[in-house]
Amino acid sequence: MALINKTRIDKFKNKANELFSRTIDQHITLAVTGLSRSGKTAFITSLVNQLINEGNGTRLTFFDPVHQGRFIAAKRVPQKHFHVPRFEYDAAMSALTADMAKWPEATHGISELRLAIRYQPNSLLKYTTDMATLTIDITDYPGEWLLDLPMLKQTYQEWSEQTHNLLTSVPRYEYSKVFLAKLKDMDPFAPISEDVLADLAKEYTKLLHIFRHQLGLSIIQPGRFILPGELAGAPILEFFPFPDISKLDANDYQNAADDSFIGMLRSRYLEYKEQVVRKFYQQHFVRFDRQIVLADCLTALNKGKESFADLEQAINMILESYSYGKSGLLSRLFTPKIDKLLFAATKADHVTPEQHTPLVSLLNQLIYKSKHQLNYDAVEVKTLAIASVKATHTGTIDHQGKVVPVIQGQRKIHQKNSDETVSPTSTDSEKRAERLTEKVTVFPGQVPETLPNNEYWQKSAFNFINFLPMSNLTKHQCLPHVRMDQVLQFLLADKMI
Amino acid sequence: MALINKTRIDKFKNKANELFSRTIDQHITLAVTGLSRSGKTAFITSLVNQLINEGNGTRLTFFDPVHQGRFIAAKRVPQKHFHVPRFEYDAAMSALTADMAKWPEATHGISELRLAIRYQPNSLLKYTTDMATLTIDITDYPGEWLLDLPMLKQTYQEWSEQTHNLLTSVPRYEYSKVFLAKLKDMDPFAPISEDVLADLAKEYTKLLHIFRHQLGLSIIQPGRFILPGELAGAPILEFFPFPDISKLDANDYQNAADDSFIGMLRSRYLEYKEQVVRKFYQQHFVRFDRQIVLADCLTALNKGKESFADLEQAINMILESYSYGKSGLLSRLFTPKIDKLLFAATKADHVTPEQHTPLVSLLNQLIYKSKHQLNYDAVEVKTLAIASVKATHTGTIDHQGKVVPVIQGQRKIHQKNSDETVSPTSTDSEKRAERLTEKVTVFPGQVPETLPNNEYWQKSAFNFINFLPMSNLTKHQCLPHVRMDQVLQFLLADKMI
Repeated sequence: MALINKTRIDKFKNKANELFSRTIDQHITLAVTGLSRSGKTAFITSLVNQLINEGNGTRLTFFDPVHQGRFIAAKRVPQKHFHVPRFEYDAAMSALTADMAKWPEATHGISELRLAIRYQPNSLLKYTTDMATLTIDITDYPGEWLLDLPMLKQTYQEWSEQTHNLLTSVPRYEYSKVFLAKLKDMDPFAPISEDVLADLAKEYTKLLHIFRHQLGLSIIQPGRFILPGELAGAPILEFFPFPDISKLDANDYQNAADDSFIGMLRSRYLEYKEQVVRKFYQQHFVRFDRQIVLADCLTALNKGKESFADLEQAINMILESYSYGKSGLLSRLFTPKIDKLLFAATKADHVTPEQHTPLVSLLNQLIYKSKHQLNYDAVEVKTLAIASVKATHTGTIDHQGKVVPVIQGQRKIHQKNSDETVSPTSTDSEKRAERLTEKVTVFPGQVPETLPNNEYWQKSAFNFINFLPMSNLTKHQCLPHVRMDQVLQFLLADKMI
Repeated sequence: MALINKTRIDKFKNKANELFSRTIDQHITLAVTGLSRSGKTAFITSLVNQLINEGNGTRLTFFDPVHQGRFIAAKRVPQKHFHVPRFEYDAAMSALTADMAKWPEATHGISELRLAIRYQPNSLLKYTTDMATLTIDITDYPGEWLLDLPMLKQTYQEWSEQTHNLLTSVPRYEYSKVFLAKLKDMDPFAPISEDVLADLAKEYTKLLHIFRHQLGLSIIQPGRFILPGELAGAPILEFFPFPDISKLDANDYQNAADDSFIGMLRSRYLEYKEQVVRKFYQQHFVRFDRQIVLADCLTALNKGKESFADLEQAINMILESYSYGKSGLLSRLFTPKIDKLLFAATKADHVTPEQHTPLVSLLNQLIYKSKHQLNYDAVEVKTLAIASVKATHTGTIDHQGKVVPVIQGQRKIHQKNSDETVSPTSTDSEKRAERLTEKVTVFPGQVPETLPNNEYWQKSAFNFINFLPMSNLTKHQCLPHVRMDQVLQFLLADKMI
């Protein structure tokens, strides 16, 4: 008994402390997620880097607290949830500032980092205090978890139909047809062994990995299948869509036995919704104040029509999670606090500067075309074209008498076996770097201002290059960036007045 | 709202179904855990194998339902908790029955498997039904999680002192002294950065891996450090004992700031207790009906005095979790249902049969010497010497005119580079097996009947050999074993009357 009371008192104390500090100072829970390798780790690293190194070469003109000289200092402090992995800021900075600079490794699952920013308030508060603190809890989580949220209001039938539609369309169908043919031969109402189900689920999971890593698609459902963590090998990750589920007799479907093929798929789907999706929703999503979604529109443009359509549908699915109203996902009971939602088109430094305006306008089209546009009045939505860590220099060249804008950066030289081409006696890492990278000056192409039509795709006019980070970055200086100050202004500035 | 009601109704339906089946039939939640590589996977595999293949060469004489001809059949059915990984029975059987038979791979974390046993009741019930079903939920979890339970009633000071005592004793001290020296130089009340703490925690975790894998010790605390799963990189796994904590001024310790070294260690310890240990306790431990703890006393005997003392202390810590009473861990609110607790000394086939009696008597001494002996009247405790999967044949040889009992089995031949010694053109796996294993006939030594004294350790009389499984095992036959029928009799038979 003593044990329990002690725990309760501790909990109460913690709550009280938290409340106290929130009334004096400000607090933001910032959620960061991204679609298909959009550079989430680089973004969080740069955001932290800009704030904690403010003063050392900062370029944060559009961030009011800095511009107005009220920004004092920021530092990392222990995060709020001890049971959530820490965002690996130091490892990411080491990668970016290494002799052979490279992009930081992608994170798996969820992680956290807390910053405390000291600033001078310019509001009424300044008469009561000289200094205030804004605490920012940054939560980094996989984009797939956000894309899973619409499942909360889908039955297994609805989800199955939607996902089956994806599987039978370009570009997924080429990879999924063998799997789907197998399913078509099976009786949905016959009993099935767990082993067969487990094997089929493994095949489906393999497909998801191909969609994600080989095709670079955004809609990967169920998201936890490709990052299983402690659920690896659990039945909850052993289901998949069933073909033509709408053609099954409704009564037969409703009354399908628990040990039948369709019955097992359905019950696992329901468990996934409850144990994975709803848990993420309740434990994390409802606590977020602000959300930034990173999207790599340029790679999608480069990959072509289907990849771009997939990005469009993914953004559509995300907006669903923020659309209030009767039919929306968010009933009053579970309304999250999010009041600002930022979509950022990343890697803007990978095109020439005059293309940034079309890039943002393209992103706007992706968002405002959505049928959800009317429903999210409560959330302020903004779009920006950014580069978290700028990897190119901009300039112009003279091409056949015309001045053409270009960008210049380093890229990796792809070699089948890089070990063989470098002399094994060469130990000078600088030399190696020279040999394995090359400087490229290029005009990557025009970003379409509106959703591209067939003509655009047929010309395939866009030539995207994956640049390496610049090689002269240092740890305690601000990283070069494009519009990170506008990101900070939108996400933080209103809490620092 | 519709969503929630539906969920509630589903939950209610599930509960109702469960209750219904429990009143007609019987149900057991069987927890299996082991100390330091005691053969947990082999045990569960054999237990399942004996039951589902009953009739195909079964040797279950001491299991009443089989002996009395009332056992009908057993089969695997979908497990209860979909979010818990499934115990990999098929993979384990494949390893045991492969051309080159090997022991199944150790499992990580928790897993589940459900069996349904059909039998004829011999009680009053038989007038109402011809057949009854006993459902068994087998939960496999790491022994370290059981050893963590005593932390629930320890303060950070208490835990720190106890664990520091271990670190400063043989055989751990040789490995931990560098780490401890580092800690001694640090001011417990000075602020410390998270990075320094994280690095020290990594060092402490490395030590735990050495203790577990190199020294073969049982007490590895905190247990989750060596199997972090989704907590990898989380601050909750970044603490350790502080040297001579009792020498710190009590007031200073109580008032230590949250960002001081000792304050951070303490708050992480408390979070670990709540988020890891208590969660395991509430989500799993309180639901178990019966518990089997596997211990490899023979390897401990072989490794020597300290390894054996560690096993003794581990058993002592386990018994604490089952000791009822005012000072016990288990307040009335959290009383688990466990009514039977079996300690099994595994690998009994690795000594000659007449040594089984001393082996059990030794295990009894380990248990009944414990100060907790009087407190667990509510739990029936039994000890057995078993072999889950028998790996040896027994016989006698004539040695200098005396008949000596021996065992015979296969063992791996350790080669520094086995690839080089086998001709690369040889593709016959049988031939390879012959080359890399050898048949050994041996009398491994006498197991002491009482806790061994210094004289025993000085003679180091015990020569334990790690045998491979027999090579002629087949998938749908019962595995050879020693006393698995007595295990089943103790754990299951009373629910099948």
